[in-house]
Amino acid sequence: MRLATLIDGTPDGRLVVVSPDGSHCAAGPVKTMQDALEQWDTVEPQLRAISDFPDVLDMGKVTAPLPRAWQWLDGSVYASHGALMDKVIGIDKPPVEWPLMYQGVSSKFYGPTEDVVMAEEDLGIDFEGEFGILTTRTPMGTKADAAAPHIALVVQINDWSLRSLAGPEMKTGFGWIQAKPPCSMAPFAVTPDELGDAWQDFQPNMHLTVNWNGEQFGNAHGKAMGYGFDKLVAHAARTRELVAGTVIGSGTVSNENFREVGSSCIAERRGIEIVDEGSPKTEFMKFGDTVRMEARTADGRTPFGAIDQKVVSL
Amino acid sequence: MRLATLIDGTPDGRLVVVSPDGSHCAAGPVKTMQDALEQWDTVEPQLRAISDFPDVLDMGKVTAPLPRAWQWLDGSVYASHGALMDKVIGIDKPPVEWPLMYQGVSSKFYGPTEDVVMAEEDLGIDFEGEFGILTTRTPMGTKADAAAPHIALVVQINDWSLRSLAGPEMKTGFGWIQAKPPCSMAPFAVTPDELGDAWQDFQPNMHLTVNWNGEQFGNAHGKAMGYGFDKLVAHAARTRELVAGTVIGSGTVSNENFREVGSSCIAERRGIEIVDEGSPKTEFMKFGDTVRMEARTADGRTPFGAIDQKVVSL
Repeated sequence: MRLATLIDGTPDGRLVVVSPDGSHCAAGPVKTMQDALEQWDTVEPQLRAISDFPDVLDMGKVTAPLPRAWQWLDGSVYASHGALMDKVIGIDKPPVEWPLMYQGVSSKFYGPTEDVVMAEEDLGIDFEGEFGILTTRTPMGTKADAAAPHIALVVQINDWSLRSLAGPEMKTGFGWIQAKPPCSMAPFAVTPDELGDAWQDFQPNMHLTVNWNGEQFGNAHGKAMGYGFDKLVAHAARTRELVAGTVIGSGTVSNENFREVGSSCIAERRGIEIVDEGSPKTEFMKFGDTVRMEARTADGRTPFGAIDQKVVSL
Repeated sequence: MRLATLIDGTPDGRLVVVSPDGSHCAAGPVKTMQDALEQWDTVEPQLRAISDFPDVLDMGKVTAPLPRAWQWLDGSVYASHGALMDKVIGIDKPPVEWPLMYQGVSSKFYGPTEDVVMAEEDLGIDFEGEFGILTTRTPMGTKADAAAPHIALVVQINDWSLRSLAGPEMKTGFGWIQAKPPCSMAPFAVTPDELGDAWQDFQPNMHLTVNWNGEQFGNAHGKAMGYGFDKLVAHAARTRELVAGTVIGSGTVSNENFREVGSSCIAERRGIEIVDEGSPKTEFMKFGDTVRMEARTADGRTPFGAIDQKVVSL
């Protein structure tokens, strides 16, 4: 089952079920994605039971599946990305035996084609292509082997980052505030079963294609997470209840062979350049630049649709 | 003007205006604190105009003024606390010329007398007495000298912390997830003008008395912030719009003469013991322990009421 949220003038929009061919949609028994996630056990079967899709799906009206959330917790569990970033930022982190995770702004997620507003151009504007999940209410202390029922939907995310601010904030130990403006979400939120073989061991088993200003920049494969989403849920829930509609991210998708497949963010490319050539060659994004991100399964499906956005000045 | 939120079985409760003597209350034109903050320019004068308080204020029904928020950004701007904590945790942070700030869980704020549920007893359970503000919608790029209209209300907060987890999380650079369970709020949210002389330079000009298991533990003074709340708003809003109902905290209230006035958290006391005696003597909280926090003005008013809670096991 694929779900989308339509712009309707309210902050949370209008939840719809998308027809199997993606052309039509139908409203369900609750108004919003947040409503659905709060009563998932009841609502999910009702949404699945819908077989009549009366409305043409206007992609111009599709916003983020969850346009705002009570909580956004982003992991960083692709090891090849983390190791390179530490080197580039000059962070000497002790190795840890748990998934890295920070809490970011969740009061807004950009829709897939919405212009992305940045305050300043010279802050190292960067994209980060990643996967995420939307959870149901998850009790404090939930373990990884009990996480599956709480992973309601899988989503695709661009975790916008401002690299000039990221390193200095990281060195304070407090994590990121200014370096992490709101993220973007691809059009469709998808149940894990809908993904089929493209969801394995609580990981997305598919490529994420990233195009920057129309040219392919990266095509990393998702199934390289050091910790699956089951473990990310357990990590997040150790000392807090996860509110329904919590968004948990994988962090930048990255593979060990990033020199061949490319990267899902500019900072990683620059890191490779620093390692290989002594200094970074690729500049960060400018106002007017575009980035397109689309995950693709081995059998050619694009379950989440595409994020395709332009960066604009405040 | 003082506002409170009454438990009514819904997640956001029922907003009321409190009578000047604190004994009665009146409902306003909007249902919740969040509603009021989203339309503050319109609603604030309507709330101020209320002069008839028909209902007895049942303190047993009072929950956090904002029981959940879209965003919680906590500063750490009492220099005497920060310097000591760095020493104790073993963090060698570069000095920064901006206020330290992290984003924490905001999907729940405990009410002032609600039991506080902790997953494990041996994680170094600690309180952190602090002040905070509730903002109206604040555009990205708002400067400190334009922040005043966005500071709608002042609140008093206990930022619960798990110290065994805090240091290791901090060293990753990603900030805190597990070390920071939900916070608590004192009963009343207060407009800055209501505080009179107890609000100066965008800082609380009053003492915060902290009692642990019935004994006074600290009585630090609030007006020692390295950055006032105007500057905290500007810092937070540099690269993001602040959603209405953003909660911004001061961090643990602390004074240079903490050996005389005491501390607003156990970790600081332990830090003093480490410096003075070579090792910490004071243990962290146990299940069943209570903590009471109440700010008091020079003329004896307690504008926020008291947080008075017990820590209990999951």
